[in-house]
This record gives sequence, structure tokens and C-alpha cells, in this order.
Amino acid sequence: MKDQWDKIIIGIDPGTNVMGYGLLGIKKKTPQLIAMGVIKLNKMDDHYMRLRHIYERVTGVIEAYLPDEMAIEAPFFGVNVQSMLKLGRAQGVAMVAALNRDLPITEYEPRKIKMAITGNGAASKEQVASMLQRTLKLDKDEMPEFLDATDALAAALCHFYESSKPIKSTSAKSWKSFIAQNPDRVKK
Amino acid sequence: MKDQWDKIIIGIDPGTNVMGYGLLGIKKKTPQLIAMGVIKLNKMDDHYMRLRHIYERVTGVIEAYLPDEMAIEAPFFGVNVQSMLKLGRAQGVAMVAALNRDLPITEYEPRKIKMAITGNGAASKEQVASMLQRTLKLDKDEMPEFLDATDALAAALCHFYESSKPIKSTSAKSWKSFIAQNPDRVKK
Repeated sequence: MKDQWDKIIIGIDPGTNVMGYGLLGIKKKTPQLIAMGVIKLNKMDDHYMRLRHIYERVTGVIEAYLPDEMAIEAPFFGVNVQSMLKLGRAQGVAMVAALNRDLPITEYEPRKIKMAITGNGAASKEQVASMLQRTLKLDKDEMPEFLDATDALAAALCHFYESSKPIKSTSAKSWKSFIAQNPDRVKK
Repeated sequence: MKDQWDKIIIGIDPGTNVMGYGLLGIKKKTPQLIAMGVIKLNKMDDHYMRLRHIYERVTGVIEAYLPDEMAIEAPFFGVNVQSMLKLGRAQGVAMVAALNRDLPITEYEPRKIKMAITGNGAASKEQVASMLQRTLKLDKDEMPEFLDATDALAAALCHFYESSKPIKSTSAKSWKSFIAQNPDRVKK
């Protein structure tokens, strides 16, 4: 399963009530949905049980799909310091589950993700989901019940777009040197 | 080593630059220093390396001393949402290291810890360290270089005090029933 992809990206939309995840497989520079879902935390009263559950479930998803990189939606501003502390704990736990499996992490602001997917940094979750459906050619029955899952998948797709951008290299002074440095970008 | 104690408490003072830890052994209701130290994070530029390092070091300390419970200093207010997010990540990672080893966690506000140790909720770190030195009869050479370590030990001692408090039981209506429920509290 792992072998059929050039790269697998796991996207995470961390929350203290519901955590979304989405797995995107890249083959020949084309992204495709592998799986997405949510980790429900709101039925657990105990804050520590939630943290432990996040660790176990994120680790489980990583072990099942063996992604190569993690993209995580990370807001820089919150309603108040208390909510940011709780969000930080949930983020930290999801991150260390990835780090313990040697996954590099990239954080993206919600605005940046929305912009990358829909072209509008203020797009709604529904607009993001709808654009994902078209971009990844998803059937209606592949669309999840919770928009936390599509948000997570959007983080993964945003990361794919960002990492496919040409690298601004100051050493590549000419087309010749650019081609030498980026042989895979030459159309054959 | 573990067998000589009735209970071992690990105290943690989480920070994003330096994380302190302290281990307190309880024997015959008397607390005693086992070990304390700091996990230095400020030499690592990468935020994710810091998180991973916290997980590995806290897990290492837990595996070395096999504590039964964790007490953690947890401020409820921060300078700004950004610092609280970072602190939350560090806390979450230290907590999940404990949870993955089945340790129950109790959080204490800095003010509460200072009050429990010195009788003054606004005491300085130096005053807390000095009171710990007297209470636990520590030699000068046992005192650590960093006050993050004594702060962590203070969290553990605060937890010991709190968990030794008589439980307010509505069913204990008389001295007779209280004694029946708390035979170990009768002076022989």
C-alpha cells in the first residue's frame, strides 16, 4: 500500500473536542485521498484521558498509513490564554506522536490553508470541503460527516502545494544552473 | 530502590527554555529528596526538537525512578496567547509522557505551590528553595544550580501536603466513625 505512493502526507486539524486527520497520497505529482476521519474527544470528561487518546490515535493512524510528513493547522491567535493553553497541549501531544515516528512537521495558519485551497483566506469550512471534493475528485459518499476531517485534509493538500513550489535559489543564476539543480522539473 | 518508599512523586516545572524535575520519596509519611535536575532546551533552535527532547527526557526520568504520581506546576495566566500556546505544547508533551506510563497527574497553580511551601503565595523562587532546603534537610551541595529544579520539587512537596490532608467525609459523623475510617491517623 505504502509502495504505490511517492509520498504520503498526513494533515492534522487539532482541537480539544474533535481532532481531524487526513491522508493524502502523492503519485506522479498528483495528490489523491487515502483516508480521512476524526478523533472524537468530547465524550471524555477527563482532560488527561483526552491527551492520552490523542497520542494513541495519532500514533495508530501513523502506524497504519506510514506517512512521510505531517502538516498541521495551527492558529496563531485564540480567544483567550486559557483556550490557547488547552489547544497547545492538544497540538503538542499530536506533534510528539509524529516526532516519535520521525515525521517532519510543518505548521500552517488557517488563513494560509484556506487561501491555498480556495484562493480565499476567509473561505468557510464548507467552501474548503467543496473545493477539496472537486480537486481530489471525491465521490459524495467519500465526504466525511465532520468538517474537521476535510480541514485536516486541506492542511495536507496545502503542504503538497507549498512543497511543490519551485525553490527560490540564489545560486541558480541561469536556466542552465536551475535545470542542473532541478532535473525533475524538465518536461520530457 | 523503588521498594524503600511508600510512594514516589515526580514534580515538573515545565518551561519552553528549561524544564525542571524533582523526585520526592515518601516513607512513613515523611518526604525526602530522591533527585532533582533540569532538562535544558534553550540550546536547541528547533521547536520540534525541544518537544521531542522533553518527551524523551521525562520518559527517561520516569523509567529511572518509577514514580507513582505526577504533580505539575501549571500557570493559568500568561503574558500573551503566543507564550501560552508554546507553554501548552511543552506541558502537553510532559503530561503525555507521564500518561503513557500510567501516572495520574495533578496540576497546581504557582501561587498555590508557593503558599503550600512557604505560607506566602507571592514568595520568590529563592524563598521557596530556602524553605525546601530546611523542610527536606538538604545539604548545601544538594541544592541545584537552577531554580527550575527546586520549583519542580516544590510542586511534588505541595502535592504530598495536599494528598495528606484529611478527606472531608460527610459520612464520618463522629470521632468513632472517623477513627474507624482512618485507623492510621490514630496516635499509638
